[in-house]
Amino acid sequence: MATQSKIVQCVPNFSEGRNKENIEKIVNPFRTRQGVKLLNYSNDEDHNRLVVTVIGDPEAVTESLYEAIEQAVQLIDLNKHQGQHPRMGAVDVVPFIPIRNMDMDEAIALSKEVGAEIGKRFGIPVFLYEKSATAPHRENLAKVRKGEFEGMAEKIHEPEWLPDFGPADRHATAGTVAVGARMPLVAYNVNLNTSDVAIADAIAKKVRHIGGGLRFCKAMGVELTDRNIAQVSMNLTDYSKTAIYRAHELVRIEARRYGVEIVGAEIIGLVPMMALVDAAAYYLGLEDFSIEQVLEYRMLE
Amino acid sequence: MATQSKIVQCVPNFSEGRNKENIEKIVNPFRTRQGVKLLNYSNDEDHNRLVVTVIGDPEAVTESLYEAIEQAVQLIDLNKHQGQHPRMGAVDVVPFIPIRNMDMDEAIALSKEVGAEIGKRFGIPVFLYEKSATAPHRENLAKVRKGEFEGMAEKIHEPEWLPDFGPADRHATAGTVAVGARMPLVAYNVNLNTSDVAIADAIAKKVRHIGGGLRFCKAMGVELTDRNIAQVSMNLTDYSKTAIYRAHELVRIEARRYGVEIVGAEIIGLVPMMALVDAAAYYLGLEDFSIEQVLEYRMLE
Repeated sequence: MATQSKIVQCVPNFSEGRNKENIEKIVNPFRTRQGVKLLNYSNDEDHNRLVVTVIGDPEAVTESLYEAIEQAVQLIDLNKHQGQHPRMGAVDVVPFIPIRNMDMDEAIALSKEVGAEIGKRFGIPVFLYEKSATAPHRENLAKVRKGEFEGMAEKIHEPEWLPDFGPADRHATAGTVAVGARMPLVAYNVNLNTSDVAIADAIAKKVRHIGGGLRFCKAMGVELTDRNIAQVSMNLTDYSKTAIYRAHELVRIEARRYGVEIVGAEIIGLVPMMALVDAAAYYLGLEDFSIEQVLEYRMLE
Repeated sequence: MATQSKIVQCVPNFSEGRNKENIEKIVNPFRTRQGVKLLNYSNDEDHNRLVVTVIGDPEAVTESLYEAIEQAVQLIDLNKHQGQHPRMGAVDVVPFIPIRNMDMDEAIALSKEVGAEIGKRFGIPVFLYEKSATAPHRENLAKVRKGEFEGMAEKIHEPEWLPDFGPADRHATAGTVAVGARMPLVAYNVNLNTSDVAIADAIAKKVRHIGGGLRFCKAMGVELTDRNIAQVSMNLTDYSKTAIYRAHELVRIEARRYGVEIVGAEIIGLVPMMALVDAAAYYLGLEDFSIEQVLEYRMLE
């Protein structure tokens, strides 16, 4: 069953989480092309954000991506965009993740090729980030995005924030975009039995790396207005070192300070099998368990 | 747009556990075919029996199975066969287990199709058993096989033991075969911080079905002499209805009566991905999680 064909995963984030019709127009280019498999897309009205996950042949995936970006640029005006999630562009971030017959260097090369094309074709300034970053201070997406769409009008002219590709000025409606290569990311959110987002935010600050918390954890507090609860929203950037269960239990521990409890959790988008097997093995206390024992894993060999 | 490729597991048992050359001839058809993955095979000289475990595309698996049966019929003469394990045929039993994108009805249909083909192609009488059985008294393999190869010469003519497919008389050298569908079995053991096997046994009696416990749980107490602890050893015969975590937590609850705690657990052999995902989802309290979110699951499509 092994083939020599390369498979890349791409998880573009678009700043549209509310208008169903626009969401469909942005997602559609990933549905029809040979060699591209749309795995998942999910929009969040509070975040006002759309996350699309596709895998496939690198060339086919990037062709679909350009079509989706064309839609996003036409449909999204950041001047009118509001949502809880920070954003700097209509197409906010485009990560490439090597999945099969590709190493990180190839994923980085692909991200640079795509970044150059986005700059040229759509007139959007592009920042290379994560493993593709051209300087250490540009690796972290939050740092690149700091100031968001509004602040980027000025920031982009600072010497250390000149874009890697595209025009020198922010696109008037589509802003800027970050493009880069990275390892698989697990988007993991923990819901609390409080409506006080300040508590979720305080917990987030303790569990995340920059606050003295877990090395591969980014986190922030989010208000789920429709459910009247607060959420600790996390990105686990290397689940093999910062496990889901560890982040989960650390949120529980921090929440105790406020007399708050966990009422649920969610995984947004795709998750590697090992991340869940690891959680099951932890909670059940499995001794000597190997992923080789999972039937479907053996099928992939 | 997802192509829902089916995966079935098949665990045929052959009555040859001693002659290495013959064993290889029987196993070989499972090695070479596209869409078939040989997971394991083990022969036991005392039992004089070979157990083969394969998964894959249902059509490809059954084609390999027919080739293996052809070898077994040529190589094995039950008139000369001796071993500790009860047996009624050269191919003794062929269970089909639905793994992915197949429900039990489909596995039953597959087993009947294969049973009919075995009867026709090889002239071997076929008994449908387990979920495929055509009457309640034919569900249990031990009951079907009672009398073994020797007794089957007469038994097969009794009105309640007429074969479901194939000729009315026992095959002169290959005997008869049981074919059927069943759920995957999860062998799950929970270790306790006591050396008293009587406590493990008392707990086992409460959690297992016949003691008033979980519907798809068989259990017994076992002494792990090398570690000086006792274990509740379970077989979960339908993990989709009697989940691993439920059995685990019920053992914990029963153990409290004795002031005993769980110190570890183990899964013996293979386990379907869904059984572990279910445990992770329970302990993390995942809301709206779908197995479609598991990357490797989607890559099998």
